[in-house]
Amino acid sequence: MSVEEHKKEAPKSVSCMILTVSDTRTLVTDKSGTIMKEMLVEAGFKVAAHRIVKDDYTSIQEQIRYADLDKNIEALLINGGTGITFRDTTYEAVSSMLDKDLPGFGEIFRYLSFEKDIGSAAMLSRAIAGVRGETAVFSTPGSSGAVKLAMKELIIPELAHVIREINKDK
Amino acid sequence: MSVEEHKKEAPKSVSCMILTVSDTRTLVTDKSGTIMKEMLVEAGFKVAAHRIVKDDYTSIQEQIRYADLDKNIEALLINGGTGITFRDTTYEAVSSMLDKDLPGFGEIFRYLSFEKDIGSAAMLSRAIAGVRGETAVFSTPGSSGAVKLAMKELIIPELAHVIREINKDK
Amino acid sequence: MSVEEHKKEAPKSVSCMILTVSDTRTLVTDKSGTIMKEMLVEAGFKVAAHRIVKDDYTSIQEQIRYADLDKNIEALLINGGTGITFRDTTYEAVSSMLDKDLPGFGEIFRYLSFEKDIGSAAMLSRAIAGVRGETAVFSTPGSSGAVKLAMKELIIPELAHVIREINKDK
Amino acid sequence: MSVEEHKKEAPKSVSCMILTVSDTRTLVTDKSGTIMKEMLVEAGFKVAAHRIVKDDYTSIQEQIRYADLDKNIEALLINGGTGITFRDTTYEAVSSMLDKDLPGFGEIFRYLSFEKDIGSAAMLSRAIAGVRGETAVFSTPGSSGAVKLAMKELIIPELAHVIREINKDK
Amino acid sequence: MSVEEHKKEAPKSVSCMILTVSDTRTLVTDKSGTIMKEMLVEAGFKVAAHRIVKDDYTSIQEQIRYADLDKNIEALLINGGTGITFRDTTYEAVSSMLDKDLPGFGEIFRYLSFEKDIGSAAMLSRAIAGVRGETAVFSTPGSSGAVKLAMKELIIPELAHVIREINKDK
Amino acid sequence: MSVEEHKKEAPKSVSCMILTVSDTRTLVTDKSGTIMKEMLVEAGFKVAAHRIVKDDYTSIQEQIRYADLDKNIEALLINGGTGITFRDTTYEAVSSMLDKDLPGFGEIFRYLSFEKDIGSAAMLSRAIAGVRGETAVFSTPGSSGAVKLAMKELIIPELAHVIREINKDK
Repeated sequence: MSVEEHKKEAPKSVSCMILTVSDTRTLVTDKSGTIMKEMLVEAGFKVAAHRIVKDDYTSIQEQIRYADLDKNIEALLINGGTGITFRDTTYEAVSSMLDKDLPGFGEIFRYLSFEKDIGSAAMLSRAIAGVRGETAVFSTPGSSGAVKLAMKELIIPELAHVIREINKDK
Repeated sequence: MSVEEHKKEAPKSVSCMILTVSDTRTLVTDKSGTIMKEMLVEAGFKVAAHRIVKDDYTSIQEQIRYADLDKNIEALLINGGTGITFRDTTYEAVSSMLDKDLPGFGEIFRYLSFEKDIGSAAMLSRAIAGVRGETAVFSTPGSSGAVKLAMKELIIPELAHVIREINKDK
Repeated sequence: MSVEEHKKEAPKSVSCMILTVSDTRTLVTDKSGTIMKEMLVEAGFKVAAHRIVKDDYTSIQEQIRYADLDKNIEALLINGGTGITFRDTTYEAVSSMLDKDLPGFGEIFRYLSFEKDIGSAAMLSRAIAGVRGETAVFSTPGSSGAVKLAMKELIIPELAHVIREINKDK
Repeated sequence: MSVEEHKKEAPKSVSCMILTVSDTRTLVTDKSGTIMKEMLVEAGFKVAAHRIVKDDYTSIQEQIRYADLDKNIEALLINGGTGITFRDTTYEAVSSMLDKDLPGFGEIFRYLSFEKDIGSAAMLSRAIAGVRGETAVFSTPGSSGAVKLAMKELIIPELAHVIREINKDK
Repeated sequence: MSVEEHKKEAPKSVSCMILTVSDTRTLVTDKSGTIMKEMLVEAGFKVAAHRIVKDDYTSIQEQIRYADLDKNIEALLINGGTGITFRDTTYEAVSSMLDKDLPGFGEIFRYLSFEKDIGSAAMLSRAIAGVRGETAVFSTPGSSGAVKLAMKELIIPELAHVIREINKDK
Repeated sequence: MSVEEHKKEAPKSVSCMILTVSDTRTLVTDKSGTIMKEMLVEAGFKVAAHRIVKDDYTSIQEQIRYADLDKNIEALLINGGTGITFRDTTYEAVSSMLDKDLPGFGEIFRYLSFEKDIGSAAMLSRAIAGVRGETAVFSTPGSSGAVKLAMKELIIPELAHVIREINKDK
């Protein structure tokens, strides 16, 4: 089947959870989470939950587990905590919980970020994606620019396709 | 030694096995495997074997083991099973059998696929390559477009070079 | 904070160790190590050590451990041994010692190498980077072209930024 | 808190799923699964499901995912497929799905198996246990002797304790 | 060389750091850390540091990094956080920082714990040990019984031997 | 099938390669390798090769690859290099080449070594075993005592059984 045919069969909507990794933000001040929400809604997707979690390994794992076990959540979109400071563990926490890696998401995001956004600093971004159980997980940096780039170029265009693939062989 | 000098010393021909991962195809209906075969032959390489295997973790491992142990096979070219449905395990099976990873193959394939072929859907492809024993292993998606792209831009131009490198320090 | 603000706060200089992986070179004949040194000095960074190590797994690990334990070394720049011959183990040795992976360095290096330098042969390069303890580690191929490309496009522009990030949450 | 106090607080009953890995058995002829069921019931635990699955990597993963997502299942007890024939992939499938390893289960099982059951052949058993999401997973060999030994000495005495620990910090 | 000769050449004393993983203890109320300290001193070893750290992945990693970088610390003895509740991450944190695994420590500890201390509950202990840089790392459960058992039967008798081995090939 | 029936069907003889990891021994002075050879022959097994290799990661991998690719070798018995000095990499080299782990071999060996041979020093032994391709791989410490213990209690009694299992589902 061609990519075009694949996409046609994709579900109309997808129910998402937004998770912002930050030690300081609230739901009110969460700029990047709000951008995610607005872009999802505009594209016709549903936002079932929007949470803030501290930049803490176990707490991030706990939220991924929550998203996996909640049958109303088909995709988890994480932003923040993808850098390389000692406390940045989003990459490690997400990686430890995935059943299937999706290496292309991080790669193409960094390629686009290098060419269209921040140049060489793109190599410091540890964006990552994959599948946990029946839930798609995408993790992007927490800056507005990074979130907009990832959403516009990769997540929004492919989200329905990804969910359809995950549910295909059940 | 420069890349040009490296390539000059590469062996004239390489003996390959083609493996198509599919639950439905036969050798007769295997379009992407046949494309692989034709492109290899046209480029002066030898096709020592052409097999079909079901999309099954252990069976794919078994074929990789076979290619490794058969001294007539220097390179294994796999197509199919690289997606993210629950039954797609080519990526995991190949990954579990490699002694040396070759991360650049998957990365550059997806970059080219993004820019020249299918856009954002490229991030769903889990192409992967590396070395098992003395055998080079390349795994691409099963669509004709993906096979042609990977063969033309990466595998055909570098196959002799790769085999020469693997056999260098023996 | 924006990437521009991040960079402003970066330290003025960084103290580096250069490590060339080669079975034949000496400090006098080490062309690629010397290029690294000159480019670092020209960019205002400090070269605290320059060593040659044989292409040997344990010896490379030992040098990474040395760089980690020496408080005067903030970044380790390795060149050589990143190919796929049986004796090329720089990739495996570096990978085994990293606390945090920085997948973007290898990816963007190979993308640039593919587009600007050696075409499809770029996929054979196993450049890799990450963090060990409080030390940044970058590993590039040993050819002059590869070293210049990695230094000019990625390492020199981001080195101070990387070190500042590593020391941020202490 | 002492081990005795820990155990006192353990839940009275635990709801279990039994999974037998076999290419030939049916629920009627599944001797070792039936032993698991009888021993669980006799000890006051509840058997919520009893399934047979073929000795196939993906199918075993699928059942573990099912047990994880079903809120009525707190523990998954697998038997069979733990040997070292090429098709034995229970160990690899379970291992790939665990969030937390419990190395002591396999170790003490093999120690007991060596001393009390089959001597040196105990080293061929690849029993394994751990936690996936909120579900405890135990995997034992498929022989009646192995199942009885693991159930009597380890699983039955600790099952309530394990479930209580898993649910502690929620 | 025989084990007896090995031990003779071992250093007379070893400089240790004690790390207690606990969300509630202070240095004053830290019973198991104090037992470690007393047993080390009585056996002629030196306690260079005694710290408490919260049961938090990154914080535990940070203390292991500290012990590795401090030249006065040759061995790090951790107690606590080795269970299987969701917040117990000592095992994962230690495991992520080791350069060399020492599987025998956890195994023999659990065997002794099973036979001499707490029976089947021993399988829930995730004791672990290994080497980071030039520092030996041992991690035991936080109960007094577990600490005494590990110290008396394994750590005290072998500590000088382990440190001597680590420093052997430098 | 019971363990007794399994063993009955085991092949009469097994063709072995002995590999001693040592920087100083020759085939003449290789005491532990000679013990392995004598015990194998006495038990009716065949010694197809006896080699010495330096304690070097890549060289050990190369020998494992050789044993895997040589159809006359069904089992590889390695001794030496299993300690924890910086240059001891047998454990890491073996581990990197195995397709299937056999955790019970190292565990039961250390248990026996603890109880019958060297007490607490047993925890420093990093014996390991598993399967690479169609070849069984066992790695023991290099002391005569360790070799005799492993051969007598585990390898000799189970070798034919292991080889039969490996070849079962082909």
